[in-house]
Amino acid sequence: MDFYMNKALEQAKKALSRDEVPIGAVIVKDGVIIARGYNKRESSQNALAHAEIIAISKACKKLKSWRLDGAEIYVTLEPCPMCAGAIMNARISKIVFGAYEPKSGACGSKFDVIGDSGLNHNAVFIGGVMEEECSLLIKNYFKSKRG
Amino acid sequence: MDFYMNKALEQAKKALSRDEVPIGAVIVKDGVIIARGYNKRESSQNALAHAEIIAISKACKKLKSWRLDGAEIYVTLEPCPMCAGAIMNARISKIVFGAYEPKSGACGSKFDVIGDSGLNHNAVFIGGVMEEECSLLIKNYFKSKRG
Repeated sequence: MDFYMNKALEQAKKALSRDEVPIGAVIVKDGVIIARGYNKRESSQNALAHAEIIAISKACKKLKSWRLDGAEIYVTLEPCPMCAGAIMNARISKIVFGAYEPKSGACGSKFDVIGDSGLNHNAVFIGGVMEEECSLLIKNYFKSKRG
Repeated sequence: MDFYMNKALEQAKKALSRDEVPIGAVIVKDGVIIARGYNKRESSQNALAHAEIIAISKACKKLKSWRLDGAEIYVTLEPCPMCAGAIMNARISKIVFGAYEPKSGACGSKFDVIGDSGLNHNAVFIGGVMEEECSLLIKNYFKSKRG
């Protein structure tokens, strides 16, 4: 799992180099990375431009399908409700995230979009993978902003 | 409110004419419709292509800002977690929806993404506006699919 999380971290660092909150994601199917994304909210001025949303959109285009069954998403921060909902809508099977997000995380920390059977799909998730690296990147970004 | 919900219904009918689940949305700011959207999931084969997401993306482009403070969204069906999360991320101030969605609605029916203070924003919502028209359109669509 660390291999793919490192790839998600590479994406997060791209966001950092563009002065965006450093969050990155990759989507993997059958062991192959099929899509990548990093947070572009400020540069695109689009409220939807989270790493996961960008990656899901690319993956749908690549597979020419809105159904990403069997795919896994690796993301450096616990998804927000929008992104967790998008992951469920895309029928992604597994979510691996790095840092926990107590304020707005939707894989159980604040909301429980994933574990609930209301949506026509269930996914498994694993949190805290390479947590320190993922978390430090974001913390240092905010520290540099305040400093 | 019926005026704008009728506009959202017009969008839903566009979806219907393209054999999509008939859901439509409009975003209003200062009394002016600034963006419209209708469900395009099947025709675009994109899991993100819900009416609200399309409308929010257009509104951000139009205002050149990810912040849609003061805007209102009118949508024919209670938003799912993805769309409710997107509405919160875009700082939309008010949500007016038509039909309730007991299975996956995120304005209180199944999830409570809007009423919760976890996100850096609060919005007000009103459900059940022109409920019968909005609901019938969707029910008849599914009935025709089964029939």
